[in-house]
Amino acid sequence: MKALIISADNFEDSELLVPFYRLKEEGIEVDVASARKGRIKGKHGYEIEVDKTLAAVQPDEYGVLVLPGGKAPEAIRKETAAIEIARHFFDKNKPVAAICHGPQILISAGLLNGRRTTCYKSVVQELKEAGAIYEDSEVVVDSNLVTSRQPGDLPAFLREMMKLVKGR
Amino acid sequence: MKALIISADNFEDSELLVPFYRLKEEGIEVDVASARKGRIKGKHGYEIEVDKTLAAVQPDEYGVLVLPGGKAPEAIRKETAAIEIARHFFDKNKPVAAICHGPQILISAGLLNGRRTTCYKSVVQELKEAGAIYEDSEVVVDSNLVTSRQPGDLPAFLREMMKLVKGR
Repeated sequence: MKALIISADNFEDSELLVPFYRLKEEGIEVDVASARKGRIKGKHGYEIEVDKTLAAVQPDEYGVLVLPGGKAPEAIRKETAAIEIARHFFDKNKPVAAICHGPQILISAGLLNGRRTTCYKSVVQELKEAGAIYEDSEVVVDSNLVTSRQPGDLPAFLREMMKLVKGR
Repeated sequence: MKALIISADNFEDSELLVPFYRLKEEGIEVDVASARKGRIKGKHGYEIEVDKTLAAVQPDEYGVLVLPGGKAPEAIRKETAAIEIARHFFDKNKPVAAICHGPQILISAGLLNGRRTTCYKSVVQELKEAGAIYEDSEVVVDSNLVTSRQPGDLPAFLREMMKLVKGR
């Protein structure tokens, strides 16, 4: 199994790096995808190499999709290729783990209607408007979908994400 | 089991946060100790609450000691209480996981003579002078001691640290 992380500049560093290292700890290959190749830079200055452009991603290759937060999702949600990748994971019921602002991408993809979901507090309004059932919990699991609110929720987020990943 | 992380200002953020969240994922309580209470700040700006001063730490309470890198170990190695805590873990053969500049604390405690160890490249010289057997590997395990070189080694570092933690 391979993992796909989709992000962009101004990602929340810990929300990208902690799942990135956790998946690699498990021996899982991780690709980072963004609109363009090169390096993307987090809000705290960490940089990470982009392995694939969104357009070059073959979603069939991946068993889990991770959507970190920060300001990156605001840019990524406008990318048609990212929307199509997210829809592929939901169509196939493959695990999707989104934290903080990460669920914005799923809102733009129209995937959260009727789904139990959490997110960063500033995203709650638009999450509800997209038809999601919002829960203020450190982690919410609804079938293939794992969501958390913020960096402090990372332990619960990792725990539930890894359960789904290992269950496949 | 509880875990103890010893650090100070200018810690390498990912080397503290990634093990911190990983141990919590496993349901392990984590205390962060430093010379003074309050908050310590990483090189990349992340802040973390200090749970205990070094002087207040009861090392018997903890099953694993984590020593992240950055510039923090240079300050911590001068703290007698930190040296005594490190010696306690070696005396009892309890797991100690040190990354990057973290082994500097173990050098000052005189604990690395004859031990297979790795560290950040700028620390190699003093590591060898302390009698350690240096290996340029992503992770080196010698009995209770797990060491790694840098943030990119975190997956292997976590994997070996968690093996020792779960084995107890």
